[in-house]
Amino acid sequence: MHQIAIGIDLGGTQVRAGLIDKHGTIVARMEEPTEAQAGPERVLSQIHSLTERLLAATKSSVVVGIGVSTPGPIDTVSGIAKDIPTLSGFADFPLKAELQKRFAFPVSLENDGIAAAIGEWQFGAGRGLENLVYVTVSTGIGGGVVADGRVVRGRKGMAAHIGHMSVEPNGALCPCGNHGCFEAYGSGTAFTLRARTRAIGCEETTLGKNGSEIHARDVFVSARNGDALAKRLIDEEAEILGRGFTGLIHIFSPDIVVMGGGISHEFESLQPGIQAYIGQWAMPAFKDVKVVRAALGQNSGLVGSAALAFLAKRPEADTFALAAYN
Amino acid sequence: MHQIAIGIDLGGTQVRAGLIDKHGTIVARMEEPTEAQAGPERVLSQIHSLTERLLAATKSSVVVGIGVSTPGPIDTVSGIAKDIPTLSGFADFPLKAELQKRFAFPVSLENDGIAAAIGEWQFGAGRGLENLVYVTVSTGIGGGVVADGRVVRGRKGMAAHIGHMSVEPNGALCPCGNHGCFEAYGSGTAFTLRARTRAIGCEETTLGKNGSEIHARDVFVSARNGDALAKRLIDEEAEILGRGFTGLIHIFSPDIVVMGGGISHEFESLQPGIQAYIGQWAMPAFKDVKVVRAALGQNSGLVGSAALAFLAKRPEADTFALAAYN
Repeated sequence: MHQIAIGIDLGGTQVRAGLIDKHGTIVARMEEPTEAQAGPERVLSQIHSLTERLLAATKSSVVVGIGVSTPGPIDTVSGIAKDIPTLSGFADFPLKAELQKRFAFPVSLENDGIAAAIGEWQFGAGRGLENLVYVTVSTGIGGGVVADGRVVRGRKGMAAHIGHMSVEPNGALCPCGNHGCFEAYGSGTAFTLRARTRAIGCEETTLGKNGSEIHARDVFVSARNGDALAKRLIDEEAEILGRGFTGLIHIFSPDIVVMGGGISHEFESLQPGIQAYIGQWAMPAFKDVKVVRAALGQNSGLVGSAALAFLAKRPEADTFALAAYN
Repeated sequence: MHQIAIGIDLGGTQVRAGLIDKHGTIVARMEEPTEAQAGPERVLSQIHSLTERLLAATKSSVVVGIGVSTPGPIDTVSGIAKDIPTLSGFADFPLKAELQKRFAFPVSLENDGIAAAIGEWQFGAGRGLENLVYVTVSTGIGGGVVADGRVVRGRKGMAAHIGHMSVEPNGALCPCGNHGCFEAYGSGTAFTLRARTRAIGCEETTLGKNGSEIHARDVFVSARNGDALAKRLIDEEAEILGRGFTGLIHIFSPDIVVMGGGISHEFESLQPGIQAYIGQWAMPAFKDVKVVRAALGQNSGLVGSAALAFLAKRPEADTFALAAYN
């Protein structure tokens, strides 16, 4: 019987569940909106129910375990969530223990940026490499790092909160409460906000002129149509990301930087600017480091959390047959 | 016979050599000014001669190896120095191979920040910890990282060039050629330059009023005597370092941050401000991370490079008796 792992990508807006084989292929996948305000009991039920439905439709597989990616920072060593800003009621909540109660398979827990990095490392853009920095540029900025062929976890498994390095002293307010973080400048949210602000009264753009709210995607579409402001906004975003990535390249010395998250859908528009910035400002020994797009798209975290289950499984460990679950 | 390792801390101004036992104790130590302009042949002779003199004075020890810390970024995997800004002629120079030719013991090579981090981890302030960030604040800013009980080396062993994360877009010129790096603001050089600039025409200070050039030490002395500008300069330095360290804490999730380098001689003056900044701006899960002073002082790199030799030595590996050397 072939082995599969369950991957869960628990986010503030969607909870995704997948059955993933040891080649990283998604055998089955389901998602639904996270009942983020309903409290942990309800969210755990969602995870359990999604998993049950996936497994019910899958025959003759051996489940090696379940990996769960959660918004951080969460202490994945103790498994206790102190506070998850995007999910109500996860205050001092023993997430790992509560998950383990509900499943007969071993549960692995990972901060979401690290889980996505593992997905890209094991099955995506970083396959076969020893060193990579994964950066998700989305509502916020998060990440995960593989160095010397090993996942960097740090104290309590909370490493790679790379959105919260300071890039501007006393700068823009960041959702974390601090000012001037990389996230406060480089995130999709910050990019969209800049577009909305700068479009007001700007003669060189059609952005926002039809009265509807500007979204990140609009800026990229307008730029392709030659809109001057839109092109400038994209250049600026590339510079902000390029500057941040250059710092991360000096800090981690990765083989590549993998960019994921919503903004990476427009990777082609951003990549030349980002790469030019790195080429210009990285120290000579680091200039050749390439930025590549996440190969698994929005599934980096889902596949990565399943990969956790495979990685956690030792050859001598028991596997759990579906029979044990039903 | 007890085992010793040879540690070499090759710097742009001094080359230090030490015999270190497996407890991290410096059994013997010598140093001399680096003949930085004389080319690699001469510098290698200095290393060889210092080592020979140390070993000649030491009886009945088994040398397990020699560890060499060099200014970076240097590719410690290939062992080839592309360019060492502070040492002339090390262009495409096969440093490791040339060192190995001169010694009968196995040679280990490490970027200086990483070597110092290893010293503090194995024998200093980070003893017994799994996760630490070491930061040297001196002429420049460098560092090294231990995560999950392992040294973070990255591609070509060049990780942890933490002085070159951007902290101010298009900011002050950094010795690396980029603008706005952490080093360009937080280093001892930057601190001294700020003091000299700000003292000019300032009524609230005695700094520089006697006509002699201001050095970093003078600022700390003046601050202890109540000098208003000196106190402000130290507060600002603590804020710059605190902001940078907060970023590193989010990036690596260390158990502690270890501060070394020349400026750490005045650690007591800086620590309260640095720690207050971290307490204020780190995300809740990271607020409790402490900054401590390097325990080995200027010997972090020397002891760390020797520790490399012990770490590199496998139980099954041969040891090299002094007889083999002489």
